[in-house]
This record gives sequence, structure tokens and C-alpha cells, in this order.
Amino acid sequence: MVPGWRTAGRMASKVALPEMDFEIPSGFVWGATEGGIKYSGRLDVTVLLAEKGPCPAAAVFTQNTFCAAPVAVSRELLQQSNGMISGCVVNSGCANAATGEEGLRNARKMAAAVGDGSMIVCSTGTIGVQLPMERLMPAIERAASSAGASRETFLSFAKAILTTDTREKIAFAKFDHEGKTVRVLGCAKGSGMMQPNMATMLAYVMTDAEVDQTLLQKLFREINERTLNCVTVDGDTSTNDTACILASGASTVAVTEGGPGYSAFEKALGDVMQSLSRQLARDGEGATKLIEVEVQGAPDFLSARTAAFAVANSPLVKTAVYGRDANWGRIAMALGKSGVSFDPVKVDIRLGDLLLFERGTPLPLDEDAALKVLSDEFVRLEANLHNGSGAATVWTCDLTEKYIEINGSYRT
Amino acid sequence: MVPGWRTAGRMASKVALPEMDFEIPSGFVWGATEGGIKYSGRLDVTVLLAEKGPCPAAAVFTQNTFCAAPVAVSRELLQQSNGMISGCVVNSGCANAATGEEGLRNARKMAAAVGDGSMIVCSTGTIGVQLPMERLMPAIERAASSAGASRETFLSFAKAILTTDTREKIAFAKFDHEGKTVRVLGCAKGSGMMQPNMATMLAYVMTDAEVDQTLLQKLFREINERTLNCVTVDGDTSTNDTACILASGASTVAVTEGGPGYSAFEKALGDVMQSLSRQLARDGEGATKLIEVEVQGAPDFLSARTAAFAVANSPLVKTAVYGRDANWGRIAMALGKSGVSFDPVKVDIRLGDLLLFERGTPLPLDEDAALKVLSDEFVRLEANLHNGSGAATVWTCDLTEKYIEINGSYRT
Repeated sequence: MVPGWRTAGRMASKVALPEMDFEIPSGFVWGATEGGIKYSGRLDVTVLLAEKGPCPAAAVFTQNTFCAAPVAVSRELLQQSNGMISGCVVNSGCANAATGEEGLRNARKMAAAVGDGSMIVCSTGTIGVQLPMERLMPAIERAASSAGASRETFLSFAKAILTTDTREKIAFAKFDHEGKTVRVLGCAKGSGMMQPNMATMLAYVMTDAEVDQTLLQKLFREINERTLNCVTVDGDTSTNDTACILASGASTVAVTEGGPGYSAFEKALGDVMQSLSRQLARDGEGATKLIEVEVQGAPDFLSARTAAFAVANSPLVKTAVYGRDANWGRIAMALGKSGVSFDPVKVDIRLGDLLLFERGTPLPLDEDAALKVLSDEFVRLEANLHNGSGAATVWTCDLTEKYIEINGSYRT
Repeated sequence: MVPGWRTAGRMASKVALPEMDFEIPSGFVWGATEGGIKYSGRLDVTVLLAEKGPCPAAAVFTQNTFCAAPVAVSRELLQQSNGMISGCVVNSGCANAATGEEGLRNARKMAAAVGDGSMIVCSTGTIGVQLPMERLMPAIERAASSAGASRETFLSFAKAILTTDTREKIAFAKFDHEGKTVRVLGCAKGSGMMQPNMATMLAYVMTDAEVDQTLLQKLFREINERTLNCVTVDGDTSTNDTACILASGASTVAVTEGGPGYSAFEKALGDVMQSLSRQLARDGEGATKLIEVEVQGAPDFLSARTAAFAVANSPLVKTAVYGRDANWGRIAMALGKSGVSFDPVKVDIRLGDLLLFERGTPLPLDEDAALKVLSDEFVRLEANLHNGSGAATVWTCDLTEKYIEINGSYRT
């Protein structure tokens, strides 16, 4: 069986909504508080803790050369601890990015503020501003001391990491193995900040599976390449992006490569991360639609993803979908500028299930059918380059006046 | 002396307006007519002819894999004729792109319709639609037979190539050499179509200098790399982009590499093409401002241009400029995602003349001064990576609600 996250394809659940039918994996506690980091009266400081201390963890970070202080500190810590981590400490309202030496010192203080100090640190919010340590440090302590294992405490964690997101992003999967249940629960924040500077993507996945750290890192990185790394809102890359997974082992189900629970775990993790990815795209700034772009017939996966991103990042494609305009010529244009190798006379382009362009030739367009496809909240674009067996699916949203309004507004 | 097009820098004339103070170079005629290609009652078919038949010409074309039929035919013709060309035939209203074999046949008929048939062919407009040859061919004949050498006929050429452009783009330069005058006149159309499909850039430069074809091609390509190839509106690349130059030789001033008139000619051509580039960016769809991005201290020109384009294409940067938000963090983010090599702690960022970020550290922001810079119609962003001597300047415009409105509207 090919796991869903590898193929994407036509999804059973077309539109991405947070999954509220979730269960708490064993071995974790969450706590959140109002730290007054930027605004008062909102949850903005939160912790996630592995109940029994350091457990196997894995993470992927922004590739932006201007990475923020918390990213630098978390990368360092994961190396030093060989990926054994006690939890995560997160604040919203201040990104601690472009803050020089003082920012690095503050990020280290955040990491050291809880338990044994082996904490992944994440910040999101305004950049170029120092953290208000006098408010932040006591808030971390309050969040940690109030931490508990419940749906409510998890939801407060999922809420405290948000900025201008319009909703929490939560995904869940589980499977049974020899009478025991393994749970995989994830949450994420996406594109948008209370006072927009740049979008930061943060994602947290918690599982009670027992997984070796090396395998966890390999699997997480591999799935991330086809899920979170396939999301784009505007082609920009934050300085703070961080995705991590912690495996508490509390289910006592051991997952080993090729072992009995392996493929079920891979599927559960892939489904959770794909669901988060779709929710992130759907809640892009100003979005009214989730757009799924699949490119097939490319030389390999990476070139398929490059071509799919060229389509997904094209402002002309994104505005056409917003305007419900079946303007497939823009898809051809975007594929053509991607630099991916193909012969134009072999290309097919589909809008939903409608074939619009076949082997390089336009077909008669059924405007009514096209309008119906484009009126849905979920729009799928598909191209086959007929130049290999590489395929990739990426997710984005439409580009609307609201995006301009959000991002063109004054900081003050 | 380093010609202006190499350095860009702080321009004397900050805002790009068509230069109406121009003179006609000798040796050319222009004609335009209402062909009814898509709409009636507007100039949409036009020709430019070298009075004495084939003359040295050079051209650069879109790099899009999905190139349109006229681009394929013009490329072919330039090769066959060793760059000796009689003129250009252009229509707006239909791009003749993604039109298969029939499109190629029609583009060849256009090229053959005038004089000896050695014509560069350009089309701009809706894609995936065949040219209305029954109206187009008589129109080409009318345009050619009415052609004349005057300011008015040139202006009608500059007008007939437009689509949703809000104004003509015209640039002119001249120099005297041993008592004779050499003229360089250019016009262009930019981003926007009557019913938007994708933006097409067309540019035509005419000079009465006497230039060898090989030198003309070399110089045109070199200057193009730093002028028209440094313009971006939305990062998308049309299937039809074409820029060409014709040298009639009618001034009887011979320009040879390193010869006496060489640097004056290089400067005149560079100035004309830089002016057209700035006018194209300023008239981007929905634009309210011209943005100039200069990156210095990169390893080389190409990496400087890559970094500058990352800034110029960032929707977050473009919306911030639109919103007059001195959000320099977005410039840092865009540089960081460009893939260009540098050390973040060495980077300087300037908004106009204001230094906002120095050697990786944010400076106190004078909000009033920043607002003043951002309230101008011309906004200059500058970054120094301090990692080499490569520099590049690119031009773009802000991203506004109007762009969404133009491009999200129905084709019908």
C-alpha cells in the first residue's frame, strides 16, 4: 500500500479543516499562559513537555540564511543532545529574529528555563525586536507549572502558537498494534501575524510510539519533504520556520524500520503532516480557496515539485483561481518558466477532472463546467509533462485583495 | 566613464515617464491600422520597416519553454538571414501562443506578408486562440502601405503594440560624432492585456547608426541582461517576450568595437533600454510606485541579480512598499531565501538613504523619515552583502489590490 502522503491525489476529504476528533498521545503535558509579549489578554507563551524527560525527537528548520536566534539555538541543542529532547517552549508576538548576540542569549535563556534545559525554542512575531525577557521568563515558568495532559491543555498550546491564523490547525491519526494503540497528534501555525512582518510556519507532532531517534529523524525529514515542504502561500520563506516531532514511547509499541508497526506508523505520520499542510495552505493570508497542484511525468520528484511550485507561486495562476477564470494558459506559462525539462507538444493540463490542453493542443473549453470546478472551495490543477515518472503535489491558496490589505497595512 | 545602464544607482530622473522629447532616426518608416483583431476601433496591427531593405538586427526572446509561434518563427528567421532583417510586423489582441501547427503556419504568413518577408513577427493578447487571418492579412497590407517616417507614425506604432498598458513607453538618446548625429529611439509594451492572460513584454529599438550585425547582437544582449532582463512585475515570464533592435546605418556613422563612436553608442543604447525598463516596471499591473532594488557586495553580477530579484519578487516586500511600511525584515528574509551566499552578520540594508540594518544589527528606526521615503512614487531599496564585488539593479512595482482586480477578473 502506498501511503496517502506519497500520492496525495484526489483526496477523500477535499477541504482542509482542523480535525477536532482527536485523542491525546500518552507521555506529554502542555501548558499555556498570557505572557503579554506584545498584546495583553491572549495566550502567547506555551510549553510542551515529555513527562519522563528527554525522549527521541527530530526537527527540520528554515533554509533561510537569515535564520532567527531560536532556530540557531534549537539546531545546536539537537546536535549536542543527539536528538534527545524534553519538550518545546514557544512564544508568539516576537520572532527574536535579526536580533544579534542579545537575541541568541535570550533564546538560550528560554531553552534553559524549563526542566533540564534540553528544550526546542520557537518564537514567532515581529522581527528586529528583542524579547521582553522580564515578562517572558516568569510566563514560561507559569506555563510549565500549570502543564497537564488533557484535550484542553493541548488546545491551549495549539492556540498560543497562532498569530493572524484564523483557526487552529490540528491533525490526528492512530493505529492499533497487538492490542495497543499508537497515537500521532499534530498542530501547526501558518502564515500571518498580528502585525504582519513575515509568515512563520511552526508545526509540532507528538506520538507515543517508541521510535529510535535516527529512524525518527529520517522518517520525519522524508515525510516533511512531501508535506510541509510542499506548502506555499506566497513563495516567501520565514526566518523562523520549525517543524518537530517528539516520540514519548509511552504506548510501548516499538516502531523499527521494516518492523511490524512500521508502515502503519509511516502512514499515520504522513496523514497527520499532510493534513496540517493542507490546513496551512487553506488558511493562507486572505485565502478563499485551497489549491492543490499536481505535476506528473517529470524526470523526478524534485523537478516535479519545482514545476508544481512554479504554478502554485504564480500570482497570475492564483488570481485566476480566485476570479474563477479557467485560464489554463497561465498554468502552461508557469510550467514553461520553471526550468524543468519537457516538450511543450506533449503536455496535458487538467482543471479538476476537465482536460483543457492535451498533448500541446487546446481543447474546446466548457465554460460552465469550468466555472463549477472553480466555484468549489478546493481547486485541483494537474499537469502531465510526459517526460518521466516523477510526480509531486503541492498546496497553496488563491491570491486575493485581502492578502494585500493584510500585508500592506502599517505596522503601527 | 561607466555608462549609466551599468550602475543604475540613484537616478537623476527618479520617476519613469515616457520621453516625449524624441527625434526620429533616419532610415525607418512605421504604419499602423485598426485590424479588428479582438476589438474594433483600436490600433492593433502595425509594422516597422527599414526603408532600404534588410539591415543588421538583433533580438532576444522569452526563455519560457512554452514559447509562442511568432517567437519560434522569428528565431528561425534571424538564424536563416544571419540577422539581416527588413522590419517587424506586430499585432495585439491575440498572442498566437499554444496554437500548435496552425499557429506556426499563421506566424509564417505574417512574416511573409510584407516586402521580402524577412520580418520579425510579434503577437500579444489572448493565448490558446488562433489569429483571425482573414482580418489580419489585409490589415498588415494597409499598415505597410500607409507607412511613413514621422513622429506621428512612430507614435501610432508605439500605441498599436499596447494592451492594458496605461501609457506608451518611449525612450530616446542621441549623440554627435564628427558633425553627424546618431539617434537611438525605443518603445515597449509591458505587463497587462485587454483581457488578462499573461503579461507580454515587447520592445523595439531603432537606430541610424551603422553597426555590424555581430557587434549589434553582442551589445544588445549584454545591455539587455542589465536592463530589460532586470525588470519584474510578478515573477511570471510570458510566452511571447521579444526585444529587438534594427540599425539602419542611415546616419553614416560607423560604430565599431572600441572605435571612436563606440562608447557614446553604448551609452545611448544603454540609457534608452534602462529608461524603457523603468517605464515597464512603473506601469506594472495595478502599480502605484516604481521600486528599484540594488544589491551590492555579492560574489558576482548574476548572484547579485538573483538576490535583487528575490527582494523584488517578494509579495511581502511589494505589499509593504505599497502600504508605506518600513518593514526591512522582509528584505532580510527575501535575501536569505535567495540562495545567494553571504554571512547575515555582515549585511547592511538601506531604504532610500536611510540605513536600517548595519552589519546584521537593526538600527533605531526613524518612522517619520521612513514614511517620507516610502511616500514617494520612486522607492529605492539597497542591500550590501559584503561578500564580493558583484552588483545588480532590478526594477519592479508595488503589489496592490488593483493587481488582483485586473488579474482575477473573468476573461468574458
